[in-house]
Amino acid sequence: MNNFNFHNPVSIIFGKNTIAQLSDILPQNEKIMLLYGGGSIKRNGVYDQVTKALKGFDYVEFSGIEPNPSYETMMEAYEIAKQENVTFLLPVGGGSVIDGTKFLAAALCLPEGVESWGILQGTVPVEKAMPLGCVLTLPATGTEMNGNSVVSRKSTCEKLSFGSLLVMPKFSILDPEVCFSLPDKQIANGIVDAFIHVMEQYLTFPNNTPLQDLWAESILRVLIDTAPKVMSDHTNYDAMANFMWSATMALNGIISRGAIEDWSTHIIGHELTALHGIDHGRTLAIVLPGNMNIRRAVKGKKIMQYGERIWGITQGSDNEKIDKTIEKTVEFFESLGVPTRLSAYNLGKETCLEVAQRLANRGVVNFGEAGDITQEVVVKILEDRI
Amino acid sequence: MNNFNFHNPVSIIFGKNTIAQLSDILPQNEKIMLLYGGGSIKRNGVYDQVTKALKGFDYVEFSGIEPNPSYETMMEAYEIAKQENVTFLLPVGGGSVIDGTKFLAAALCLPEGVESWGILQGTVPVEKAMPLGCVLTLPATGTEMNGNSVVSRKSTCEKLSFGSLLVMPKFSILDPEVCFSLPDKQIANGIVDAFIHVMEQYLTFPNNTPLQDLWAESILRVLIDTAPKVMSDHTNYDAMANFMWSATMALNGIISRGAIEDWSTHIIGHELTALHGIDHGRTLAIVLPGNMNIRRAVKGKKIMQYGERIWGITQGSDNEKIDKTIEKTVEFFESLGVPTRLSAYNLGKETCLEVAQRLANRGVVNFGEAGDITQEVVVKILEDRI
Repeated sequence: MNNFNFHNPVSIIFGKNTIAQLSDILPQNEKIMLLYGGGSIKRNGVYDQVTKALKGFDYVEFSGIEPNPSYETMMEAYEIAKQENVTFLLPVGGGSVIDGTKFLAAALCLPEGVESWGILQGTVPVEKAMPLGCVLTLPATGTEMNGNSVVSRKSTCEKLSFGSLLVMPKFSILDPEVCFSLPDKQIANGIVDAFIHVMEQYLTFPNNTPLQDLWAESILRVLIDTAPKVMSDHTNYDAMANFMWSATMALNGIISRGAIEDWSTHIIGHELTALHGIDHGRTLAIVLPGNMNIRRAVKGKKIMQYGERIWGITQGSDNEKIDKTIEKTVEFFESLGVPTRLSAYNLGKETCLEVAQRLANRGVVNFGEAGDITQEVVVKILEDRI
Repeated sequence: MNNFNFHNPVSIIFGKNTIAQLSDILPQNEKIMLLYGGGSIKRNGVYDQVTKALKGFDYVEFSGIEPNPSYETMMEAYEIAKQENVTFLLPVGGGSVIDGTKFLAAALCLPEGVESWGILQGTVPVEKAMPLGCVLTLPATGTEMNGNSVVSRKSTCEKLSFGSLLVMPKFSILDPEVCFSLPDKQIANGIVDAFIHVMEQYLTFPNNTPLQDLWAESILRVLIDTAPKVMSDHTNYDAMANFMWSATMALNGIISRGAIEDWSTHIIGHELTALHGIDHGRTLAIVLPGNMNIRRAVKGKKIMQYGERIWGITQGSDNEKIDKTIEKTVEFFESLGVPTRLSAYNLGKETCLEVAQRLANRGVVNFGEAGDITQEVVVKILEDRI
């Protein structure tokens, strides 16, 4: 086991009718900015619950944060927040709204004149951030309990991420009932996203971390077991609650402490979103099977552990077991209506080369847990999924 | 799943040679009190590591905190802390040193004239506490990552507990190497303590919390697998690290969120310590099997889940499966040299009656997850373990 730090001070409020607690936990005497997306929270009643709880607080609204939140949109929020002297941010939505707000929280505290895109390029350190608290409406990214944020820049077709303890939410409210009205596609994407968050932290070189392994496998097991229940009935409270809690636990840092992480599936997947607008979770469903197949020399031992413990695969040669394990993983994603091939989006060889080139241009080479992913390996991983 | 809150802001620093980090993380310009026990930290080198890191800080020492930390001893620390204008507490030790310090942290912030024993009696609310940070030297109680504290009062033979978010450590340093010199008995007690912490949160009425169940079972599995390794070689780093991390995860709140808790084994066990000085973990090893046996009507379903998933028990009638599961649990504790019967301490029927009477005198009746433990049931549970 490697040395590690673990510090996750996010306060989670989980369960039915918990949004009303906002009125007790929001800080007094702050100028609050309520941020949300395209208006689904107005249709499903969440907006009404939030604004009811906000009675008596001083707040402004900012709406229109799009999926894959854009730097451009968040800079509009930035201008309004500055004008209105906002001091506390309240994102209400899924990963995009919360991620965009985390970036805003950091941008609002930069010294005068510093270009905020640098936060995402890694050239500007985050030394301060405006406090934020969330209401989560879509289980998927885990952003409600971590310090990560992914933001896209439309003008340059870039999708970059940053992480800082300082942008961890002060609180996150998770009411599974607000997810009852989600479309099938978003639930399916969320399941795949959470599943692959676990895989990036688990399907790596064994490091004598048996509890972390078992906890990771536990999340996979609950997602697999819960997926058909929640897909067939969005109003199954316990199924939604178990999915929602699993997605949060998948990326709050706890399962990876002392273990080895990868994140190459995300790095490659982000390019597919930036270039072709494919939903985040769906890009991961394409890349992961290729990543497992092409990098079996690095990941083989853990793929076989995963295959045996999760899918019961014990027969055959090592390569046969790995093949079967990839097959079962692909079947699971496809069972949710999530395609696992580039051809489903009419993409082919050209995209594989372009993604690899874009990463190389940004200096993203020799990545993955063993530093083994060269530009050529990126092409192979993607070509495996045409 | 029930509604729940989860908020655990303790910063964990885990791994080899991490005590030196104290010099970076201790707050500047505070008057620190270094608290420890009977001096084992002087023999195993931890004291030297800590005082080296404390160079340049203003601190006083308080030593002599005994196992089952006493109110009387902590009040001596209280006097010194007041005299010396202490503002930050640094307990270095196991559960006793840290628990005693948590009580001290709360006591030091009470309004003038308020009797601090009331904190443990539940009559004095904790509204403020002095900040503390820990160096853990014995994996067992989980106190390094929660707000719980158990303190005994010698003069009245009472052992009581309190809990408050305010006494959660700001940081806890866990270096598995400092545990290499622990005696067998303390390691065995620690394994049993951590195991039964899980059981109190897991072996309860099913509440549709599959992830919490699997995470609890994961800890049990790692403890069972790690126990012989760590017992046969205290210097096996990975085994000690896995035990240490499992013990922390066993009682930081994460496995019980949304689930149903019990804690009756602890409530009864504390009386055995208060009356007869039996080590905490050892009292639990006596009470748990009796609790499982006598309360099979309440716990049966979960006992069978535990028996099947942890011990592979699938054959026989329900009662036979429960019997076998209890037997395996007892065998595990005994394999560590931890007795599971009162007779091992030359105690019998009289003690059973006395414990039940003491609890009843304090108004502790109708407890356990179903409120089913009457004075009579306490007697039955203990008589089962003569």
